[in-house]
Amino acid sequence: MTDILFRRATEADVPAIVAMLADDALGKAREDLSEPLAEGYRTAFATIDSDPHQLLAVMEEDGRIVGTLQISFLAGLSRKGATRGQIEAVRVAADRRGARLGEKLIEWAVGQCHERGCQVVQLTTDKSRTDAHRFYDRLGFTASHIGYKLNL
Amino acid sequence: MTDILFRRATEADVPAIVAMLADDALGKAREDLSEPLAEGYRTAFATIDSDPHQLLAVMEEDGRIVGTLQISFLAGLSRKGATRGQIEAVRVAADRRGARLGEKLIEWAVGQCHERGCQVVQLTTDKSRTDAHRFYDRLGFTASHIGYKLNL
Repeated sequence: MTDILFRRATEADVPAIVAMLADDALGKAREDLSEPLAEGYRTAFATIDSDPHQLLAVMEEDGRIVGTLQISFLAGLSRKGATRGQIEAVRVAADRRGARLGEKLIEWAVGQCHERGCQVVQLTTDKSRTDAHRFYDRLGFTASHIGYKLNL
Repeated sequence: MTDILFRRATEADVPAIVAMLADDALGKAREDLSEPLAEGYRTAFATIDSDPHQLLAVMEEDGRIVGTLQISFLAGLSRKGATRGQIEAVRVAADRRGARLGEKLIEWAVGQCHERGCQVVQLTTDKSRTDAHRFYDRLGFTASHIGYKLNL
């Protein structure tokens, strides 16, 4: 049995998280792994960490960071003032994929949304991530929406 | 020429906003227009209004509220620490649709995202909203993602 632990990310975790974001078909073209880590990552971490409506988390397996995701708890007027839990930037370390760690990570995140009183959990995935689509279908999510992006 | 104005919503605007959320094929089954307005709406408004990363806005035409949307400014580590502007709960008053007010509203919102330093604007729309898909395509958005929901 391995020991799996979920916790809020600290600033010391940022390089490991960015490395996972970059170790991905789409992420590798978007991230900057040069050292010291680009200032934008530190600034973004500080903003997330100081925001009570944000939770950047890591999953540890036997003391090593093997997964990450971010949850935004979004108040809104829709659905009688429902709070939505939005999951973004989900990654599992490349050498630990296929071991159902992603499933544990999402189940933990859904639990966090439940504890925070969310009525809906939402996320988007790129249309090209067909593995991810099967994954979220299997976990009971409904592919009900189209996600639009506009780069500024 | 009509006089169009965009501004941050106040608590006094909440009934007009909820009425627009409800006056919609999908929204009518989800909202509660009974008076006094359900407490959930007031609580959600207070949470949004006190959060510097949220902007609930209304569009006025000649002094009447004819549109609304909510923007969440979401810090994240992805894309070198990019901030994303997320648009939700977009509505134009039923009797003022077809007058390109929605276009003005989204263009204003994109401008707000730009001013706040966002690198990406994102939103999702239900797969059944085919008019909305044409609308966002026309405004330059790319339908690159699938949006998943899980009701808790």
